Amino acid sequence: MIEQLKKEVYRANVELARHGLVTLTWGNVSGIDRSSSLVAIKPSGVDYRSMSASDMVVVSTGGKVVEGTLRPSSDTPTHLELYRAFPAIGGVAHTHSLYASMFAQACREIPCLGTTHADHFNGPVPVTRFLTGEEVDAGYEAWTGKIIVERFSECDPAGMPGVLVAGHAPFTWGAGPADAVENSLILERIAQMALGSLQLNPAIAALPMHIQRKHYQRKHGPEAYYGQKNK
Amino acid sequence: MIEQLKKEVYRANVELARHGLVTLTWGNVSGIDRSSSLVAIKPSGVDYRSMSASDMVVVSTGGKVVEGTLRPSSDTPTHLELYRAFPAIGGVAHTHSLYASMFAQACREIPCLGTTHADHFNGPVPVTRFLTGEEVDAGYEAWTGKIIVERFSECDPAGMPGVLVAGHAPFTWGAGPADAVENSLILERIAQMALGSLQLNPAIAALPMHIQRKHYQRKHGPEAYYGQKNK
Amino acid sequence: MIEQLKKEVYRANVELARHGLVTLTWGNVSGIDRSSSLVAIKPSGVDYRSMSASDMVVVSTGGKVVEGTLRPSSDTPTHLELYRAFPAIGGVAHTHSLYASMFAQACREIPCLGTTHADHFNGPVPVTRFLTGEEVDAGYEAWTGKIIVERFSECDPAGMPGVLVAGHAPFTWGAGPADAVENSLILERIAQMALGSLQLNPAIAALPMHIQRKHYQRKHGPEAYYGQKNK
Amino acid sequence: MIEQLKKEVYRANVELARHGLVTLTWGNVSGIDRSSSLVAIKPSGVDYRSMSASDMVVVSTGGKVVEGTLRPSSDTPTHLELYRAFPAIGGVAHTHSLYASMFAQACREIPCLGTTHADHFNGPVPVTRFLTGEEVDAGYEAWTGKIIVERFSECDPAGMPGVLVAGHAPFTWGAGPADAVENSLILERIAQMALGSLQLNPAIAALPMHIQRKHYQRKHGPEAYYGQKNK
Repeated sequence: MIEQLKKEVYRANVELARHGLVTLTWGNVSGIDRSSSLVAIKPSGVDYRSMSASDMVVVSTGGKVVEGTLRPSSDTPTHLELYRAFPAIGGVAHTHSLYASMFAQACREIPCLGTTHADHFNGPVPVTRFLTGEEVDAGYEAWTGKIIVERFSECDPAGMPGVLVAGHAPFTWGAGPADAVENSLILERIAQMALGSLQLNPAIAALPMHIQRKHYQRKHGPEAYYGQKNK
Repeated sequence: MIEQLKKEVYRANVELARHGLVTLTWGNVSGIDRSSSLVAIKPSGVDYRSMSASDMVVVSTGGKVVEGTLRPSSDTPTHLELYRAFPAIGGVAHTHSLYASMFAQACREIPCLGTTHADHFNGPVPVTRFLTGEEVDAGYEAWTGKIIVERFSECDPAGMPGVLVAGHAPFTWGAGPADAVENSLILERIAQMALGSLQLNPAIAALPMHIQRKHYQRKHGPEAYYGQKNK
Repeated sequence: MIEQLKKEVYRANVELARHGLVTLTWGNVSGIDRSSSLVAIKPSGVDYRSMSASDMVVVSTGGKVVEGTLRPSSDTPTHLELYRAFPAIGGVAHTHSLYASMFAQACREIPCLGTTHADHFNGPVPVTRFLTGEEVDAGYEAWTGKIIVERFSECDPAGMPGVLVAGHAPFTWGAGPADAVENSLILERIAQMALGSLQLNPAIAALPMHIQRKHYQRKHGPEAYYGQKNK
Repeated sequence: MIEQLKKEVYRANVELARHGLVTLTWGNVSGIDRSSSLVAIKPSGVDYRSMSASDMVVVSTGGKVVEGTLRPSSDTPTHLELYRAFPAIGGVAHTHSLYASMFAQACREIPCLGTTHADHFNGPVPVTRFLTGEEVDAGYEAWTGKIIVERFSECDPAGMPGVLVAGHAPFTWGAGPADAVENSLILERIAQMALGSLQLNPAIAALPMHIQRKHYQRKHGPEAYYGQKNK
């Protein structure tokens, strides 16, 4: 089972690079096997083109490496915080994709300005607060996860599968590693669209709520009718 | 005849992706056979790389699937409204292309700022109003088509082969599926150019009318002399 | 000799597309053989991927087709005006490249903000005036050439190998077709850089004249030392 | 040993082009062999696709060509100034990459707005002053190096592996030619991100210092834990 997960995580990491979401090694994807509580994740600082599925590192949710000869991504503690706090998710992706990072650096949430956004993210994409000096010292990556979870005390991680860490970059998640990557791609596109729309009309209002709701439900509600039935 | 149409529609959908106008499955093209009133359209949520001409779904203008095992695009009712209201068109394309969507989200029409625009779109590219809550409930996709048609009570769909749906994205059309896709590409380029020109000069005026008229006539008027005679 | 010119013109048109400077068929390159006063130019509205050197159309400087079965580019009269007025040039290129067109549409010259610009264009890239209604009626494309030449009453076409036609797009030129294309590419890059610099600092001043002069001379002056001697 | 250096310098120049950081021949990379004080550098004005490792020119730190039949890059004197002033560096790269050049042209340093920046550049990326007319006359390229070194009287070239030359473009450096290129790529990405963030929030403050410090140390400090141990 873990072999299958390692393959999925490997493929998702390659997809992340293929979509143009990463420069150098600035991105990583993980996946969790909920039955064994094992997480497979990209090794730290390794090129996407030279790695293989067997290079994926397996860690326990407590952070102990249980398989693999390479160091896991330095962002592993952030991924683990998300898996612990959001029991329904099966994959996490992190990138420094350009447009989503612009919003993260500007500490601005991405307002829902259109149906592209509403189809996938149920409301404005939230931004965390900055970490304090104490939190940085106490465990930078774990605390990055904790302030995401803190921010989601007011958000539903199922309807809002991503976040902007202030002054840093996005994290996204989903049912599995591939979904997490797809949400990273979507987040990048809606960030780019929002930047342009805000330049055209700085006083722009959010998409009317009845349209936001309709679009989100059309793809994700109980009566969703987008795509094929067997999907 | 429908087999030929399905091939054209398939190829047009592939072109849409090849031009970089779609992310994931956010785009679809259809074509109509006016003699039989049958419409071929992309199946919903299917990847452009994995589909073939035989996957195109055939529907009646009333919306009934008459051929194909997959669900048609969820935007099918919008396409059908356009075919019913604009009897001269033979193809419709829908994308969430980045720059055209920026204008749609900002609820700003694209002013005619240059000859690239004037060569293809006879005046500013219009924006619809938002749908009301009642309209959303009564049939979101069909009503999306109806507000486009409503907006064109003041426009000629022959001279203005595209529209921005407020808070959503563009629809374009043409003599056939390939022309509809070409108009999606042109719309995306003039949107990007207009965004830049507006940033350089927010108080910019539209291209003088005598030049707009000349350029449009040069390509589309009765005395058009652009391109080859046998085109 | 004309066969050689047709090959050069063909290759230059293909390069124009390869550099990402054209969408669809929005661009054309020509070259002149000064000994015979014959001009080879791209055929109108033909795809860059499907044409060959033998499709290039040969016209006299008076505009008469002397070889070729296709119609020459509709912009041919503009090219011919430039060849007549600027006797030292051997090639002309026209594109609707995105960033240069943004400046043309905004009717703003491109200020010399850096050495990339100064290396190739000796001063701000000028913008023409708009054509009058009478001029449009009297011969749109020829008059486009005439207003470029009019604008160059104050510029040296050797030091300033390009221009922005107001509300339209750039024309560039050079010693031959390949140089004209290279100048189109350079113009596009300096336009993009200038747009960004102006966004970062709207009150930006031009590069100090002693640095502008140095950079231009380094590449183009009598003591030029950039590149290889045998170039 | 010089053969090995020439290969590394050749590959680094090819990488520079592959990353999309250069237009035409606007970029060059060099590397130094500290034991022999010999520098290998790209030949001037030669296309990246047509050159080979044997075309790299070897010069002494005094600027004398000791191997190679082509002229060295016209920017060679700038590289040599940097090698003389910064004894710990082993490679230098120069590009006119678009976004970094926008900041250079606007004479604005790139503020540290996020962790992508903080991971690699320890503080805002500095801008030099303009050269005076006397300095231009006395040796333009050497003086370009001297004003970089002058600017670094307040900066540490180890922690700040790059600079923007006012009205010109970036220079970067590193332990070897490949590192210098990687820093050019990183600089381009953080410039693009910073432009977008500044557009979203012109009054944006720098990333809090405790986070800047943490990110820089995580990758470059004595206790760095990013990447693999054997890296």
